[in-house]
Amino acid sequence: MSDLAVDQSTDIAPSTASSGGEAILSNRVRQIRMSATIAMAERAATLKHAGKDIISLALGELDFATPRHVIDAAHNAAQNGFTRYTAPDGAPIVKEAVREKLRRDNSLVYGTNEIHVAAGCKQVIYNALASTINPGDEVIVFSPYWVSYVDMVEFCGGIPRVVATDFESGFLPDPAALAKSMSHRTKWVLLNSPNNPTGAVYPRELLAQLAAVAGASPNTLILSDEIYEHLVFDGNTSTSLGTIAPELRDRSLIVNGVSKSYAMTGWRIGFAAGPEWLIRSMAKVQSQTAGNASSISQAAAAAAMTGDQNFIPIWRSALQRRRDAALEILRGSPWLRVPQVPGAFYIFVDVARCIGAYTPQRRILETDLDFADYILDEAGVAVVAGGAFGASPYVRLSFALDDQRLREACRRIVVACDSLASG
Amino acid sequence: MSDLAVDQSTDIAPSTASSGGEAILSNRVRQIRMSATIAMAERAATLKHAGKDIISLALGELDFATPRHVIDAAHNAAQNGFTRYTAPDGAPIVKEAVREKLRRDNSLVYGTNEIHVAAGCKQVIYNALASTINPGDEVIVFSPYWVSYVDMVEFCGGIPRVVATDFESGFLPDPAALAKSMSHRTKWVLLNSPNNPTGAVYPRELLAQLAAVAGASPNTLILSDEIYEHLVFDGNTSTSLGTIAPELRDRSLIVNGVSKSYAMTGWRIGFAAGPEWLIRSMAKVQSQTAGNASSISQAAAAAAMTGDQNFIPIWRSALQRRRDAALEILRGSPWLRVPQVPGAFYIFVDVARCIGAYTPQRRILETDLDFADYILDEAGVAVVAGGAFGASPYVRLSFALDDQRLREACRRIVVACDSLASG
Repeated sequence: MSDLAVDQSTDIAPSTASSGGEAILSNRVRQIRMSATIAMAERAATLKHAGKDIISLALGELDFATPRHVIDAAHNAAQNGFTRYTAPDGAPIVKEAVREKLRRDNSLVYGTNEIHVAAGCKQVIYNALASTINPGDEVIVFSPYWVSYVDMVEFCGGIPRVVATDFESGFLPDPAALAKSMSHRTKWVLLNSPNNPTGAVYPRELLAQLAAVAGASPNTLILSDEIYEHLVFDGNTSTSLGTIAPELRDRSLIVNGVSKSYAMTGWRIGFAAGPEWLIRSMAKVQSQTAGNASSISQAAAAAAMTGDQNFIPIWRSALQRRRDAALEILRGSPWLRVPQVPGAFYIFVDVARCIGAYTPQRRILETDLDFADYILDEAGVAVVAGGAFGASPYVRLSFALDDQRLREACRRIVVACDSLASG
Repeated sequence: MSDLAVDQSTDIAPSTASSGGEAILSNRVRQIRMSATIAMAERAATLKHAGKDIISLALGELDFATPRHVIDAAHNAAQNGFTRYTAPDGAPIVKEAVREKLRRDNSLVYGTNEIHVAAGCKQVIYNALASTINPGDEVIVFSPYWVSYVDMVEFCGGIPRVVATDFESGFLPDPAALAKSMSHRTKWVLLNSPNNPTGAVYPRELLAQLAAVAGASPNTLILSDEIYEHLVFDGNTSTSLGTIAPELRDRSLIVNGVSKSYAMTGWRIGFAAGPEWLIRSMAKVQSQTAGNASSISQAAAAAAMTGDQNFIPIWRSALQRRRDAALEILRGSPWLRVPQVPGAFYIFVDVARCIGAYTPQRRILETDLDFADYILDEAGVAVVAGGAFGASPYVRLSFALDDQRLREACRRIVVACDSLASG
């Protein structure tokens, strides 16, 4: 297959390579797409740049400032010469901070030899998948899913097995459906609670059931992406897989990071705790494909995880207030079906009633992508179509922006929906 | 093949998975090793930690401090909220800085759509290789080579074709040998001047000849790793592939970064300039496997590339002085064959005369790895064995440390060699 590709490209003349160099690209890279959330954010930024009044609800990051003591720690590190290579999977200072965080927040005890630190959860997860997936291995992903899971699995030569969750069940995975999808080729089951894009928070008992089903297959690993851990509302709590399924410790990878809890998306520090043999392999991948995460960011992340945590409930309250405001406005529209949002900072809105409707320009909205384009053009609001998350017709809205702009954006969406005419 | 691996692992019991989880690892990751330079540096650090007086000549980084204005720019960026996601392959501020650098230092004009910024050259090169290599594609690498080239090619499923250079020719590649190694499967030719680990600097005419040979095959791409560009001695200059072979612009990727020129190894910013179709694909890989390099580091790198450049010749003089001191001491030993070092900050010492010799403990040194271990134990000096660079028996010494410690380390090496007895 790949041989053919090579042999064919032998015939490409230099001029062709210049205009159509795509022929030279690998099959691996042809399989993946640019991250859809990033693509939408860039499109919104371009329109903004052109002077349009655009409100972006497209990207997954808090609008809060990185806490002052974190910034100061980074500056001190730079001034004190913490500007050199560190171990590829993290300096002792940040691994110790991860240990402390896991003890404090999750009652989990891990050694530094069981901890991996890289430049964001995305890289952490990639290192884990690249360390383990052989061509043909299957990875179970619940939809709606975080945009990169499926692309990463395919990039590693694996086969994503998507198990759907639905609006009615609050987007909670069904253990029976998981059991049916497992096979001897299931290398990983990916869990993500609190969930992006749905905001679902798996109850303890459900998490335990899912772990039991996944764990019953002795050569299946379980990855628990807990990056939104601290962002749960209405007094809910988020449970770590490590806490609830200690018997699966040797096949569990707990993934987390500082991006969402500490408003540090740009700094790029994610981490994982897992069995030493896997952690060692992930370090190897990191050492040959990227090297250590920024030493300055590592120092900042260490300060975030070990320093004052009191702002977290304050941020949480602010997010809950915004969520409530957004939900109230959106629920005013008969065109939209709006779910409960127990955690994270997204609303995953069902736009099925809009599909088939006519815009004021008499264009039919055929897909959620059409709907997102319509909302961007008509309302100046950027949202991400559900297709990117493996669920249509939906759109994902982030409510991590200031109250006034958020209300304004939601009102504009409702007005744009009101301008639709039934098909 | 992978199917077998999966089926076999079905029989692994949970307890086996816990102790021998390695069975779950991918074939891909089994093919690669932990970066040897990092491994040696870690070993030296462990001994140091245990109280031993160890001088490390193992790692590839300057001992200078990151310039003050760079650190200040990073701090300002953090304080001003430049702490969010950027475009996955670099914010406009750093892409513009790369453009300015390429114009100023290399007389090259690239658009921002032809520039890729990631977390270090290693990641930049990985993104390029992962974007293009299909299983069975060949990549030509000249030995001695930078440790990660071969591992990265194999990790991407490619086949490294190693073309040797030798001590006598100053480790300069032979265009005729390159021509003989080219085939219709040659996806890339990797060039690295100034060279790690040899310090060789390709003369303009040689670079032009190599480019002509590689360029003659219309579906072959050329990667030029120019990270040591500014570190050339004795009035030598380093030439960019882009300057010398403009006709190959559509198939050339110019790779560089701020690590070595600005003492910013820990910050992790590398970049590449190349054809838009390739840059677009590299951005896609970056967006799905890692996300943007640290925004703080991007701001720092932009300041480094656009700010005061006057310290570079001062650093260069300091390095030349150190090189001269190290060469003089090492050349005093009849056990070592020491090359010219026109650039970079390494001395790639031929230790063939030590192989077969007896240590004071009456152990025979059978390989350069034995020699490196002996030097670490006997002299307390960490060096990296040549095997990691595809050339034995050699060791690589870095002279990027303060004059006094460097002299001390070289003297200790010479004394340790004097303690050897011919076999």
